[in-house]
Amino acid sequence: MENNNRPVGVFDSGLGGLTTVRELRAILPNEDIIYLGDTARVPYGTRSRETILRYAHQDLSFLERFGVKFTIVACGTVSSVIVGESSFSKSHCTGVIEPAVNAAVRSTKNGRIGVIATGASVRSQSYEKLIRSAMPEAEVYSKACPMFVPLVENGYTSPESVPTLAIAREYLEPLAESGIDVLILGCTHYPLLADVIKKVIGDGVKLISSGAEAAKAAKLRMETMGLLSSASSPGSIRMFCTDSPELFRENARHFIDTSGISVDRCSVEM
Amino acid sequence: MENNNRPVGVFDSGLGGLTTVRELRAILPNEDIIYLGDTARVPYGTRSRETILRYAHQDLSFLERFGVKFTIVACGTVSSVIVGESSFSKSHCTGVIEPAVNAAVRSTKNGRIGVIATGASVRSQSYEKLIRSAMPEAEVYSKACPMFVPLVENGYTSPESVPTLAIAREYLEPLAESGIDVLILGCTHYPLLADVIKKVIGDGVKLISSGAEAAKAAKLRMETMGLLSSASSPGSIRMFCTDSPELFRENARHFIDTSGISVDRCSVEM
Repeated sequence: MENNNRPVGVFDSGLGGLTTVRELRAILPNEDIIYLGDTARVPYGTRSRETILRYAHQDLSFLERFGVKFTIVACGTVSSVIVGESSFSKSHCTGVIEPAVNAAVRSTKNGRIGVIATGASVRSQSYEKLIRSAMPEAEVYSKACPMFVPLVENGYTSPESVPTLAIAREYLEPLAESGIDVLILGCTHYPLLADVIKKVIGDGVKLISSGAEAAKAAKLRMETMGLLSSASSPGSIRMFCTDSPELFRENARHFIDTSGISVDRCSVEM
Repeated sequence: MENNNRPVGVFDSGLGGLTTVRELRAILPNEDIIYLGDTARVPYGTRSRETILRYAHQDLSFLERFGVKFTIVACGTVSSVIVGESSFSKSHCTGVIEPAVNAAVRSTKNGRIGVIATGASVRSQSYEKLIRSAMPEAEVYSKACPMFVPLVENGYTSPESVPTLAIAREYLEPLAESGIDVLILGCTHYPLLADVIKKVIGDGVKLISSGAEAAKAAKLRMETMGLLSSASSPGSIRMFCTDSPELFRENARHFIDTSGISVDRCSVEM
């Protein structure tokens, strides 16, 4: 296969990365995409750094078997722990943190930036560190939102949902009071709660989707390296998961239309 | 070590089984207990049958390294898939389903029995089948409650909690309307929501804790087999988890006091 016609890899602990696939598909329709969701071990966001790193290396190795030319780590939790890990070097890989931080720093007017993410991401302080290195005068307000992933995966995404609104108020009202004008959605599940989040935090706060920014960054990086596909017809999408493909399809419908896309079970444990 | 002074094993996908440890401790204070929580792969309840079985075999093998004389499968999801699996034979093992069903059948007056559990447990229909074989005229009303585990693990257990009450109403009101007089809490996390559940379903419905019934059944089985410890002083408790022991301790406080109990990380993958 020609170097630039190899597939792009995308992986996540589960389904959230499908928001990134959707975005990638929209801006690079002719690329072949291989997606891996580690549904047998989701969620990663409640686990320790060492466990997450071990899982992430296994996920990356799996995608490399397909000769991927570039990989998007479409999982905020993994992105937050791989900073500085040589297997995830910038030449062939992007996480969601740096692209989201760059967009936030470009967008903020008052230098007050909010970050919502999983517990593991917030504990890692990856967002804060990167924001402060790009914009030393920034004030960063972070909040772990551990209930958001189960709410999304169980379909509680409507801005009329009583439980979701109550939990979103608890998480987000302190951020709203701090006067942020930009909010990074640091977990790829969160774009599905955008309407709820807007309702609680107000229209004056710009939401940055980390998964969408990662897709844009991947496009730019591949352009620079001459890796964009020369194909002129729509690329294929192939999906793998580590638990039942039927359950994957059933739950994936909240994120993307999988009709006509092959979903196979795979093993990534080594 | 003498045959009857070997430890009792208890395992769960995560922390829920600690409600069973608490109960076991109360009724058999002189037994040594080894607990395993597979926190690196929790939750099991959203996964497929094959994946759950594979994990359960690994968990059991780990406990067997300690020469356990009897094992309680303190996980409703695992209990529901191991029915008929020879490695989990009744002579040295009990799940939570049969003990809970026996208690429910003894308690019901009108033959209408409710069951709440994880998605995997409900899909397996293990409760229904066993209830119907013990009481053919019973009417069984089952409901998967996938949001209850994340709510418990994030501390939303108060009967005043707005999100928990809203979700509990959604799950339980149809059961209440069906006129059940007994409700099996088929997941070992659920006893922590007993106050919420009572508030929604009313005082006329007797709640059966599957974990507590399993502890009672284990005592009876060990008595019959002459396996009860001859020790006259309090037994030891030792805990293992597959992810960070610090996170385990932090989250375990919703279930049991772990001060003075050793918690170590272990590997169960083979």
